[in-house]
Amino acid sequence: MVKTIVWKDNQVVMIDQRKLPMRERYVVCKDYRSVIRAIKGLIIRGAPAIGVAAAMGVAVGALKIRTSNLDQFRAKLDAICRDMVTARPTAVNLAWAVERMKQVADQTSHRGVKEVKSRLVEEARKILEEDIAINRTMGRHGQRLLKDGSRVLTHCNAGALATGGYGTALGVVRAAVEAGKRIEVFADETRPFLQGARLTAWELKKSGIPVTVITDNSAGYFMQHGKVDAVIVGADRIAANGDVANKIGTYMVAVLARTHSVPFYVAAPVSTIDLSVKEGQDIPIEQRDQTEVTHFQGRRIAPQGVVAGNPAFDVTPHRYVSAIITEKGVITPPFKSRLKRLFL
Amino acid sequence: MVKTIVWKDNQVVMIDQRKLPMRERYVVCKDYRSVIRAIKGLIIRGAPAIGVAAAMGVAVGALKIRTSNLDQFRAKLDAICRDMVTARPTAVNLAWAVERMKQVADQTSHRGVKEVKSRLVEEARKILEEDIAINRTMGRHGQRLLKDGSRVLTHCNAGALATGGYGTALGVVRAAVEAGKRIEVFADETRPFLQGARLTAWELKKSGIPVTVITDNSAGYFMQHGKVDAVIVGADRIAANGDVANKIGTYMVAVLARTHSVPFYVAAPVSTIDLSVKEGQDIPIEQRDQTEVTHFQGRRIAPQGVVAGNPAFDVTPHRYVSAIITEKGVITPPFKSRLKRLFL
Repeated sequence: MVKTIVWKDNQVVMIDQRKLPMRERYVVCKDYRSVIRAIKGLIIRGAPAIGVAAAMGVAVGALKIRTSNLDQFRAKLDAICRDMVTARPTAVNLAWAVERMKQVADQTSHRGVKEVKSRLVEEARKILEEDIAINRTMGRHGQRLLKDGSRVLTHCNAGALATGGYGTALGVVRAAVEAGKRIEVFADETRPFLQGARLTAWELKKSGIPVTVITDNSAGYFMQHGKVDAVIVGADRIAANGDVANKIGTYMVAVLARTHSVPFYVAAPVSTIDLSVKEGQDIPIEQRDQTEVTHFQGRRIAPQGVVAGNPAFDVTPHRYVSAIITEKGVITPPFKSRLKRLFL
Repeated sequence: MVKTIVWKDNQVVMIDQRKLPMRERYVVCKDYRSVIRAIKGLIIRGAPAIGVAAAMGVAVGALKIRTSNLDQFRAKLDAICRDMVTARPTAVNLAWAVERMKQVADQTSHRGVKEVKSRLVEEARKILEEDIAINRTMGRHGQRLLKDGSRVLTHCNAGALATGGYGTALGVVRAAVEAGKRIEVFADETRPFLQGARLTAWELKKSGIPVTVITDNSAGYFMQHGKVDAVIVGADRIAANGDVANKIGTYMVAVLARTHSVPFYVAAPVSTIDLSVKEGQDIPIEQRDQTEVTHFQGRRIAPQGVVAGNPAFDVTPHRYVSAIITEKGVITPPFKSRLKRLFL
């Protein structure tokens, strides 16, 4: 299994997801600012994975604070947490992980700076381990939705690389395969960053699961020709009513799935659900740099001076979602009451 | 205005659409085989443009036949026509143009080889000139569908570069602009060949028409946010019932347009309508090489050994089409009876 992110010698080590699949290069982050840069620059991406990265970033930042005065330490730690949360706006897992780290600091402050630092490191590692365990549980629940021989279309990468390991959407696929089912995957290439063609294809191939890469705009063609039995995607944030923010293009897939009566499943840990956001339109959508669309790996595609739009996410209204697969079970509509119940 | 294809010194000169917008390079075809290679290799593309290219290819081929024996000449000419038709299977304009050239040969054969050759050259040039005139007429009809301030989404390139000049879908936009309307265009980048990001953006920018390039998978986002007033696309073949074969992804755009109550217009010359094909599912869909998806301008994107699907076109059922804009007027449903009437 690929290691997306690990804690090693008080540093954060990540596989560089910009370079995959051509190069397996690892990036070592020695301070919290380089973790923020890694998140912003897409060295690491995927909602659960950036949650883990943020927690480790806070931990590595905490270790570097040179004071034994608790008040000074907390002031600096809080500043680090504030910076970390702003790295990317859409995935709520980032804020969720940072909040969890702050709570640990709150709960252990009476034991002094050294102990707080040690507990923060412990908590970051725990978030990583828990994430992998959660994905496995999610997979066990979700795989029941897939039949032997199912052909699953996925968008972006919601796999081991998007998480601590195993994956959310791809975790469901992995669990179905582990349960003895033959599963084939259609991977939307997912412009502009090509997470599907590069990352999903790479990790499925490593795991021996058959995968066919397709352009995003041909998802409709393959559904029209009866080649897709189910869609499974991840999520960056799920609103209280079940609206799902996920990688740009997810909404297109959901509309096409509905048109072809193909079930559309979202696989995400409970930490992705944000009850404080009533509906999808209130989720902040990151607008990324135009050059990600006008250029391809540094080479210009579009003519000089042409404007490009580059929303990184879109919102799929809950009415398009057949079920949300979580570690606490598979949630079907009505989502509003049932998602709320997960937090009781 | 850009010259997509011209007849010059008994040779066919085309702008190399693989290299645009980074390089304005021209390719000179001195024999019919190099015209076929240019069509297959996407040096020239777009249904009306490959119709013109095929006609010129037949003409350049005819000129090279070294015999004054009429029967021998016709046998060789027919072989050239057969080869030419197989260059690409989906756009019917190619077969239509070749058929027109054969008819000219039939009608002038009694005058001898030299005269047939000269009439074939004349006919090929006429097809080019007619195509531009048809586009202008189509534009005048179609532009009435657009209001001042309309924001038009288009897919692929159905512009001057896809035709003899002016364009089909973009011809409608041009005519609206010439009529004094302010029009903005969203250009789907159109993977894998990026006709939108490269060609549509290039020619609209040259013409001073505002254009924003977007990834194919974000068309839904912009419609959801109320940014698109109309969709206009070209066509490679229209079946008798109004089903439309066009660049892969067109179907996705049509489904999204319907979902958002955005009108979906197809602009195409009457030569694109194939009454011999009852419905869209009978139109042959070209499957192109996997490497167009797994590689980008020669650089590998997807991991070694991963399979890719690469259908070059898809079929949009007629129920998604608001109107078909032709040089004979704007056709609204029911298409079956009304398309038939165009040929009476």
